[in-house]
Amino acid sequence: MEHLQQSFTVKFEYNVFFTAGLFEVGNNILANFLSQTKSAAQRKIFFVIDAGVAEAHPQLRSQIKNYFATHTAVKLVPEMLIVAGGEEVKNDTQHFDQVVEAVNTYGIDRHSYIAAIGGGSVLDMVGYAAAVSHRGIKHIRIPTTVLSQNDSGIGVKNGINYFNKKNFLGTFAPPVAVFNDELFLHTLNERDWRSGISEAIKVALIKDANFFDWIEEHTTALAQRDMMAMAELIWRCAKLHMEHIAGADPFESGSSRPLDFGHWSAHKLEYLSNFEVRHGEAVAMGIALDTVYSQLSGRLTPTDSQRVIDVLITLGFEVTHPLMQVNEGKSPLLAGLEEFREHLGGQLTIMLLSAIGMGEEVHEMDAALLEEAGHVLANKTHQQLQ
Amino acid sequence: MEHLQQSFTVKFEYNVFFTAGLFEVGNNILANFLSQTKSAAQRKIFFVIDAGVAEAHPQLRSQIKNYFATHTAVKLVPEMLIVAGGEEVKNDTQHFDQVVEAVNTYGIDRHSYIAAIGGGSVLDMVGYAAAVSHRGIKHIRIPTTVLSQNDSGIGVKNGINYFNKKNFLGTFAPPVAVFNDELFLHTLNERDWRSGISEAIKVALIKDANFFDWIEEHTTALAQRDMMAMAELIWRCAKLHMEHIAGADPFESGSSRPLDFGHWSAHKLEYLSNFEVRHGEAVAMGIALDTVYSQLSGRLTPTDSQRVIDVLITLGFEVTHPLMQVNEGKSPLLAGLEEFREHLGGQLTIMLLSAIGMGEEVHEMDAALLEEAGHVLANKTHQQLQ
Ligand SMILES: NC(=O)c1ccc[n+]([C@@H]2O[C@H](COP(=O)([O-])OP(=O)(O)OC[C@H]3O[C@@H](n4cnc5c(N)ncnc54)[C@H](O)[C@@H]3O)[C@@H](O)[C@H]2O)c1
Ligand SMILES: NC(=O)c1ccc[n+]([C@@H]2O[C@H](COP(=O)([O-])OP(=O)(O)OC[C@H]3O[C@@H](n4cnc5c(N)ncnc54)[C@H](O)[C@@H]3O)[C@@H](O)[C@H]2O)c1
Ligand SMILES: [Zn+2]
Ligand SMILES: [Zn+2]
Repeated sequence: MEHLQQSFTVKFEYNVFFTAGLFEVGNNILANFLSQTKSAAQRKIFFVIDAGVAEAHPQLRSQIKNYFATHTAVKLVPEMLIVAGGEEVKNDTQHFDQVVEAVNTYGIDRHSYIAAIGGGSVLDMVGYAAAVSHRGIKHIRIPTTVLSQNDSGIGVKNGINYFNKKNFLGTFAPPVAVFNDELFLHTLNERDWRSGISEAIKVALIKDANFFDWIEEHTTALAQRDMMAMAELIWRCAKLHMEHIAGADPFESGSSRPLDFGHWSAHKLEYLSNFEVRHGEAVAMGIALDTVYSQLSGRLTPTDSQRVIDVLITLGFEVTHPLMQVNEGKSPLLAGLEEFREHLGGQLTIMLLSAIGMGEEVHEMDAALLEEAGHVLANKTHQQLQ
Repeated sequence: MEHLQQSFTVKFEYNVFFTAGLFEVGNNILANFLSQTKSAAQRKIFFVIDAGVAEAHPQLRSQIKNYFATHTAVKLVPEMLIVAGGEEVKNDTQHFDQVVEAVNTYGIDRHSYIAAIGGGSVLDMVGYAAAVSHRGIKHIRIPTTVLSQNDSGIGVKNGINYFNKKNFLGTFAPPVAVFNDELFLHTLNERDWRSGISEAIKVALIKDANFFDWIEEHTTALAQRDMMAMAELIWRCAKLHMEHIAGADPFESGSSRPLDFGHWSAHKLEYLSNFEVRHGEAVAMGIALDTVYSQLSGRLTPTDSQRVIDVLITLGFEVTHPLMQVNEGKSPLLAGLEEFREHLGGQLTIMLLSAIGMGEEVHEMDAALLEEAGHVLANKTHQQLQ
């Protein structure tokens, strides 16, 4: 049959910069990035800021104004939009609407920039608004949590929740640059400091045994908020995530999602707990569950399994939750597994461990083993370890 | 300064099929396409149909049901969504919302398909809804107008209007396949039959002198609704558009937009006339204006300029409009030119002709020449030609 064939590739490139004090006038990283593009066009930059960050850093807005008073390659829109931090900003579409309205009000065009400063939730929402405004305005991410600096902020996905469903609306849209400023991390509360570490453990477990060894050696330093250790953890974790994205299937046209190790149960728990449990906290429990399951199903040695659990507990993570337990074959978790199977279109693909640093995909989970794994974890508590 | 570099390419591929009677049970093109993907997943297909098409083809829905009763590689969602045809469907977000709701209600996942049957307006809206639902559901386009079969439906853009601004929200998102069924064209009214021909003239003028010669020879056949001539015109025009997209900058990261020949004034006229003037009609007038301007500014010979105008008039196009005239240096058109300059970020880039088949970019337009060109066109009427 007669047809025309279309085929082309699109190249995506961006850098993730690491710094401390991005908006100090003497810090040229951002200014250099913005000066790089030569353009006859008058470009603007518009900032959207996480309310939690604005509160913890009351001087931030005036720093930004000073910065752009000195560095003038692009024109700062003096009005900045402060939006709620946390999952709330993805749950209520009015925040998305505000960004889109600002694009219209301040005349932000495709030569201009929308910069978002905040946690993964704010970055996800703003990234989505930027991606669909004028079919894509250049988006700069300035992540301010551990999770967003080592995972969500350096990747290619954005989104908001809709119909009470996580990331129901969103796109794959790489940023033009990411700036990880470690000074933001000082003001994180304990939960948010810890939370993002689980993504580093996740990626180490499926891809890089050396990195896991390193985490193991630095567990106490990390727990005590040692910034040098955290900076190295974020760098290595971000690097592994970025290599994975570039190497495989950046826009996820297939159905394999190896980076979702520990995530099938984590996503369910986030929902069931009405987001009381943070993403990273849920992932820690999900990792624990799939690790012990890997052991009980004969894939992973008991010693390696114990190492993983010990690291999680020493960092202060809970390793399980009542909603993650299976009792007498019954659990919302098993329903979650079925939903996930449906979501994948009928065939389950779940990542387990065959060794530390080595993932293995399986297509079935055994309910009895899940029940046993849950009970094993319920018996391992912070107290018992000491 | 320390940084991580990200760089990857994403490949996009799709076919544009040409057929007559896509949903006749014996026609295997669509069924073959859907069977191609081997997947353990139970895939669904959900149809959104242009109300104008549903009305002109009252048997369409039962044909589709019969088709999928025989061809069972994917499961038809029996409920189909009928949406308003024309610009209306892009102006009011409730239509977009309906598609997104259907994704949720019928459980359309990333393995499934959303097929849109309709003119360019319906395809633009549904394509946008598909692109952002679950970060992109596979989208099949079945264009039913000349314009959508030879231009909008075979490209990579989608969008809806917002804040009363054309395509304010949208993405670059290629379809997985396009099916051009010529039988739909029989029910087009005279304006919509003619309207899309201007896009073929546009692309011929900037890229392919032979194609323009061919159009010139077939002007009468096209005006008399000869389907063989129209099928060839659509094929050649689609091919040129597709080659252009693949060859240059598919997602328009730069600011050069050569395919927008004749469009700067056309866009303005569509708005000023409140979309009373169709896109293709406005483009015909925009082509006429920029052609005569090319002549008056010494780029194009008077003979070639006359050939273009003759083709447009013989096809039944109006070649100008009161709103496109400049009088004593005053015109909404000049304001439109300024807006366009701003939209491009300060520097104007406009395509003119240096010969038939050869475009030339310029960065300034002369108001006095635009005034003269408008007056030249106002004096060329259908009557005078005969
Ligand atoms: N796009 C992706 O690829 C991807 C990947 C993983 C997770 N995510 C998403 O990321 C979100 C979670 O992001 P998160 O863990 O960064 O948390 P978060 O964005 O929800 O923020 C948590 C809290 O920390 C506050 N905060 C942020 N930075 C601060 C700072 N420097 N000092 C003080 N307070 C600060 C926020 O105001 C908020 O109250 C979830 O919605 C998750 O789905 C996205
Ligand atoms: N995405 C792109 O790259 C791109 C390019 C060019 C134009 N466009 C957009 O396309 C839109 C115009 O599309 P269009 O010219 O196809 O017109 P249209 O979609 O606005 O449809 C015009 C009318 O024709 C009716 N109709 C459609 N098919 C019919 C059929 N087979 N029989 C009878 N009636 C039928 C519709 O119901 C509508 O009333 C504009 O919004 C324009 O901006 C998009
Ligand atoms: Zn995660
Ligand atoms: Zn056009």
